[in-house]
Amino acid sequence: MEVHIAVAKINKYASSESGDTLEAVERPNGGVSVVLADGQTSGRGAKAVSIMVVRKVIGLLAEGVRDGAAARAASDALFTDKKGQVISTLNICSVDLHSGTIVLTRNNPAPIIICRAEKADCLAEESVPLGASRDVRPVITEMEIEPGLMIVVYTDGLVHAGKRRGQPMDTCEMLRSLLEDQDPSPQELADSLLAHAVQLDDGRPADDISVVVLKVVHRAGDDVRRMNIRLPIAN
Amino acid sequence: MEVHIAVAKINKYASSESGDTLEAVERPNGGVSVVLADGQTSGRGAKAVSIMVVRKVIGLLAEGVRDGAAARAASDALFTDKKGQVISTLNICSVDLHSGTIVLTRNNPAPIIICRAEKADCLAEESVPLGASRDVRPVITEMEIEPGLMIVVYTDGLVHAGKRRGQPMDTCEMLRSLLEDQDPSPQELADSLLAHAVQLDDGRPADDISVVVLKVVHRAGDDVRRMNIRLPIAN
Repeated sequence: MEVHIAVAKINKYASSESGDTLEAVERPNGGVSVVLADGQTSGRGAKAVSIMVVRKVIGLLAEGVRDGAAARAASDALFTDKKGQVISTLNICSVDLHSGTIVLTRNNPAPIIICRAEKADCLAEESVPLGASRDVRPVITEMEIEPGLMIVVYTDGLVHAGKRRGQPMDTCEMLRSLLEDQDPSPQELADSLLAHAVQLDDGRPADDISVVVLKVVHRAGDDVRRMNIRLPIAN
Repeated sequence: MEVHIAVAKINKYASSESGDTLEAVERPNGGVSVVLADGQTSGRGAKAVSIMVVRKVIGLLAEGVRDGAAARAASDALFTDKKGQVISTLNICSVDLHSGTIVLTRNNPAPIIICRAEKADCLAEESVPLGASRDVRPVITEMEIEPGLMIVVYTDGLVHAGKRRGQPMDTCEMLRSLLEDQDPSPQELADSLLAHAVQLDDGRPADDISVVVLKVVHRAGDDVRRMNIRLPIAN
């Protein structure tokens, strides 16, 4: 098998800093974890919060701490630091080669979508952000790594896109229609979802938006790990 | 402008763990850093060393510590931990949007190649790995971010490829011929260099090999940051 992970990320309109922070890191016992946090408010303050949360989580994952425990620790650290006044969402999306599973950790009201064979399920069980109180627990979903499985994770910029104009985005519905058409690559899916959200916001995103698409496919290629990053620079 | 970064990475033949560790992280004042370490020997011990070095460096970069200081700190930490018995190479390749420069930090005998307008310069100034002694200093090269600039960084698996068969690889020469042909993408370049090295090793890499290609181009697209990861899984 092989796992493909694609990320598309854009800042709020006219904002040079994104409140969303995303890092992908190697797991010490094999695999990768994508860690995505969205700090409350936008701009510099939100960036500092989301960076702090992501850093805390990847530091713990690197030591072999389990994803759920890392999320709880980051919540406690944020609560202690900000006295419950600042919250942050968190998603951890791990390909754990040690357990042979994909582990989804969510402290985010925004749902996660899980697709198998063109069927898209929306996991929308209630989930609270980090830092709001003591003992915040994440919602954890674990499943076998198997070909055909696809997972879509996003921040609330996607959820709220178009609301200003009274045309909110139905991400799950849009994903289903994208999957009906053809067999889009993870990057095409992430790009399409993001582009649609930006369009609903009249080309001026009302919030930072991040979309992560993870797909498991049958092994098609060589033994080479690859990573590709595109970073647009303002001037 | 936009910056494209591509990575291709393969394990030593019949080795499930790579001694090379590579992480790409956001810089707190804007931009990204790619951090690549290769721990002495191969397998589990080397992995633990390179993970420790990369973790130390990205932790410090996240706090706003300058690249050179982060490299020196990682060296001192490794020297203290292993009493000078274990060394690790380190390359940090940073797109620093705060200074508007690309900063290359090297504690690695393997050279770095800098290309501008089909001209490939090999930076091979002597550079020692981390952890060998106290006060190890990195070689630092800083340059303006400008379209057409391309940087190629790699671990010694590429340098030593083919030596077993008495056909060592001339990376700089090969890169020049690849650049003459057409305008290959960073991923195509990284893949070609890696594939050639593996071929020289008879399809069985004698060491872990990692290749990073960073290219600055004129702005061609939208404001979206993208990242793409491919992770092959053994079974």
